[in-house]
Amino acid sequence: MLRLLLVAALTAFAPTAHAADARQMEENKKVVVEFYELAINQKNFEAASKLLGSRYIQHNPNAADGPEGLKAFIAFLREKFPDNHSDIKRIFADGDYVILHVHNVGTPGTRGNAIVDIFRLENGKVIEHWDVRQEIPEQAANSNTMFQAFFRAFPRKRESRVGSLRELTPT
Amino acid sequence: MLRLLLVAALTAFAPTAHAADARQMEENKKVVVEFYELAINQKNFEAASKLLGSRYIQHNPNAADGPEGLKAFIAFLREKFPDNHSDIKRIFADGDYVILHVHNVGTPGTRGNAIVDIFRLENGKVIEHWDVRQEIPEQAANSNTMFQAFFRAFPRKRESRVGSLRELTPT
Repeated sequence: MLRLLLVAALTAFAPTAHAADARQMEENKKVVVEFYELAINQKNFEAASKLLGSRYIQHNPNAADGPEGLKAFIAFLREKFPDNHSDIKRIFADGDYVILHVHNVGTPGTRGNAIVDIFRLENGKVIEHWDVRQEIPEQAANSNTMFQAFFRAFPRKRESRVGSLRELTPT
Repeated sequence: MLRLLLVAALTAFAPTAHAADARQMEENKKVVVEFYELAINQKNFEAASKLLGSRYIQHNPNAADGPEGLKAFIAFLREKFPDNHSDIKRIFADGDYVILHVHNVGTPGTRGNAIVDIFRLENGKVIEHWDVRQEIPEQAANSNTMFQAFFRAFPRKRESRVGSLRELTPT
């Protein structure tokens, strides 16, 4: 009986941990979506900085380290690209990380950039950021665009987890 | 009693689904690491194509759609960048997606590119690919590099999930 109880306890433990992880990851996604909207679209450092943790480690080579670097970057956006807008196309979470696939348009009417942002969180706050940015070219060797998902063109093919935040614009 | 059983059944269901998802996501990570190594580093289309599903939807604007597009891209690498090598720095999984953060060097001795690849899988096979690529600049506004993780410089700070495939080079 003791062995049975032990097996039951061990079996129960891992799924509970998974469920807790899953809840934290969904929460982290919401924090990052809000942080991104406040920082990049609203360009409001004061509001965005409330979602930063004890530090903000910056890996974007064009931005200085720390919260002060973010402040300066947002000031740069306000001055040089006041209409800069980023649409989050996809969002993923794994452990302490949240990953965004983004279509950024610095100047309205231009094709803009494809960006992937990687954020690391600690206690539900943003503490580290990496990104990669590529200009969307005029010509492409395929007709799939840098963002479009297969199941948009073929609506019968759906994600296995419809309703998650993963695909923000699934139709 | 029936209500109790029902509550127990409902409570048990979600964690079991999470555990199954988690196993599939770890398996998907291994498939993508192998696919990447075979396609990009070994440049072996025949071997890599065994890990493709019923289709291969390409969003990289420089590559043609489908398995034939991958074949042509690998042939291009073999001819123009025979020493091209990509190091996977981070790997994430969420649902059907696997995301790689990669340091790519096309020609040895050059700084190379930061890349994020996003793969979608179906039944454990690769069926879709998006990526974003950025040249690593000579100068940067911070000293964190485009890849380095905070806990490397401060070894006491560790990931909350050490031992996962998430950080492939954590030290």
